Amino acid sequence: MTIINVNEARLWRSIEEINQFGATPEGGVCRLEFSEESARARDLFVAWCREAGCAVRVDRFGNIFARRAGRDNSLPAVLVGSHLDTQTSGGRFDGIFGVMAGLEIVRTFNEQGIETDAPVELVVWTNEEGEIFKPMIGSAVWCGDLALETALELREAEGWTIREGLERMGYLGDLDVNSYPVKCYFEAHIEQGPVLELAGEVIGIVNAAQKQYWYDLRVRGREAHAGPTPMAVRRDALVAAARMVLAVDEIGRTYPEARSTCGHVEVYPNSRNTVPGEVRFTADLRNIEPSVLDSMDRDMRERCAAIAEAAGVSLEIDVHAVIERVAFNPTLVAWGREAAAAAGKPWREMFTGAGHDAVNIAAHYPALMIFVPCKDGISHNPAEDAKPEHLAAGAGVLATVVARAASHRGDL
Amino acid sequence: MTIINVNEARLWRSIEEINQFGATPEGGVCRLEFSEESARARDLFVAWCREAGCAVRVDRFGNIFARRAGRDNSLPAVLVGSHLDTQTSGGRFDGIFGVMAGLEIVRTFNEQGIETDAPVELVVWTNEEGEIFKPMIGSAVWCGDLALETALELREAEGWTIREGLERMGYLGDLDVNSYPVKCYFEAHIEQGPVLELAGEVIGIVNAAQKQYWYDLRVRGREAHAGPTPMAVRRDALVAAARMVLAVDEIGRTYPEARSTCGHVEVYPNSRNTVPGEVRFTADLRNIEPSVLDSMDRDMRERCAAIAEAAGVSLEIDVHAVIERVAFNPTLVAWGREAAAAAGKPWREMFTGAGHDAVNIAAHYPALMIFVPCKDGISHNPAEDAKPEHLAAGAGVLATVVARAASHRGDL
Repeated sequence: MTIINVNEARLWRSIEEINQFGATPEGGVCRLEFSEESARARDLFVAWCREAGCAVRVDRFGNIFARRAGRDNSLPAVLVGSHLDTQTSGGRFDGIFGVMAGLEIVRTFNEQGIETDAPVELVVWTNEEGEIFKPMIGSAVWCGDLALETALELREAEGWTIREGLERMGYLGDLDVNSYPVKCYFEAHIEQGPVLELAGEVIGIVNAAQKQYWYDLRVRGREAHAGPTPMAVRRDALVAAARMVLAVDEIGRTYPEARSTCGHVEVYPNSRNTVPGEVRFTADLRNIEPSVLDSMDRDMRERCAAIAEAAGVSLEIDVHAVIERVAFNPTLVAWGREAAAAAGKPWREMFTGAGHDAVNIAAHYPALMIFVPCKDGISHNPAEDAKPEHLAAGAGVLATVVARAASHRGDL
Repeated sequence: MTIINVNEARLWRSIEEINQFGATPEGGVCRLEFSEESARARDLFVAWCREAGCAVRVDRFGNIFARRAGRDNSLPAVLVGSHLDTQTSGGRFDGIFGVMAGLEIVRTFNEQGIETDAPVELVVWTNEEGEIFKPMIGSAVWCGDLALETALELREAEGWTIREGLERMGYLGDLDVNSYPVKCYFEAHIEQGPVLELAGEVIGIVNAAQKQYWYDLRVRGREAHAGPTPMAVRRDALVAAARMVLAVDEIGRTYPEARSTCGHVEVYPNSRNTVPGEVRFTADLRNIEPSVLDSMDRDMRERCAAIAEAAGVSLEIDVHAVIERVAFNPTLVAWGREAAAAAGKPWREMFTGAGHDAVNIAAHYPALMIFVPCKDGISHNPAEDAKPEHLAAGAGVLATVVARAASHRGDL
């Protein structure tokens, strides 16, 4: 297998140029979807796509599709993309890298005279970040997980709708949503975790997204005055909840490749001289193996029940959400492995702990994600950072797999 | 020593009658200071005092003084009182019992022809509860701990001042604050803790208020995505804070007669799928022995520092407040012991964990508190409850000590 090498300097320059829109003094990017900055970044992207010979269309939800023609444009398209919007205190790579990697692939194909059977389309999904509306709406609408009209009428606090936001940006298009055949979807992304960096690896071939259980826990003890109430008669909801937080943390350290987090806590009455009568908190358990996740679930319930009983408090555990494991396409994962090996860089096969448009899409279409390291695993932060050579290596692996998919006949 | 017995039924009836003002459907009382309910309860109290032959005066901060003349009215007065205001979800006894016990003592003295050398004055302190303004302002102004003009100009959220609140109630009086000699102060109160009830005791002779250290703790780790971030590289501020909460709780169980509480917690960013980057919480350590409290302080600092180091998080501990130990007058405490023993009911000498007007006053004047049990140690709650016979026993012990103090010549 021959790896396709992209132009590292050009890729880096494109990322820097697009990040002029919403650049913050801290070195990050604030480019909320539906803002002027997002509109201008989209405009620049569209101009670049046209320069690269692509035909640009915008669908009724503002998702942008820039098609590089194949030899047979009746074949299902191969999509490559990500998003251009950021969090309020966003960084320079989350989403942006995936879009610019796609553009760099098209430019490289043009430069190197690489033709494909099927058309290759660059995609920018609307509203991936969840700062104003919930996250990953553009891909959810495209997949049919969320109705177009419902999504367009979502309204934010000041009263405007997504439809109005898209009109304001000039990106309420007329292409019907998901109205032609698609073969598969690719997305390059910074890892948003520290695994690759800590292992000294450059490429992550993502094979799946973890299954997740999200819980709401409610501990009720007895509110009491902090002064007169002897320790021995207290039923302190916070002390019990603290033991449960430690039990949840321990579970993540006990099972292979597990994650466990308590992220949200509310204490009642939350007064400094009152023994807490009630604590509500969340737990988030994740594992790539559903059976292991079920063991973690049982373990958490048993440990927390024992803690509650010993502390004389009541405990309710509600499942807030179950997010199913999503597998990326095995054939595309295998091609990713081959390309990574051919690239000669340290790599691994891994799962994604974060949600992405590609995870939405993988539930419906063959899909693959490729990760590159980010500094200290930090994202959604102005400190988000990545190395030009890592980004280029990831884009090169992606280019190789995209070319292969776009000339592949038969099912994936 | 002969115990003076009060009229249990009359005391109970007075408590019930005054609690018509602000009675809630849950069986509690909502009688915020400066409300119409508070004004009407004050009016009824004043009417009862006048019926009982007392001369009623109201000072410039709305504190009510109802004087039963002694044989020599030039002698320093003996004060007996508490407050009539309640919390929003207040109960039927906190404060009310102390005021009604004072009234019952005067009625009993009248009935039994008991004369005293010094005058006995019933007191209702303005704004003991801290629902709108900070607590115990009336006694603080009277003691000189808070300037009258400053206190009158305190302004609540809707914009009115305490001066306006007192005018509205008709209780902005013209008696100069603390303008004549006072010998000592007595206050009967429900315990607001479970100690007497659990021990099957009826009377608590309060000898001191605990010394208290109030802390603000701030733990800073590293915010991270709950999905991609392996457990081993996390610096989870909440997990570290949970260990500290348990350490603080353990300290209260290690030292004699200690109390330790974490009552207030704030987690940042408090998002269910983000490893917390920062937790701010409070700790409250109390002990009747200042040297033991200092040991608890050192112990907490050492344990929390060790936890922070092991967890890779930073820790700041600020002292928010130091509340000094206050001793009640040893002579009055001794008289309380004698009266309790003479009453033939199970009793104990104890400290108060809660703040009271009597604690403010004890820093300046000889003072004594007498506690009676309350059900399950619950107060500031509609479920607040106490037994008529316990209230009468406490009022009887108080009557005995008040009579003794009011005819005592010489210093206390």
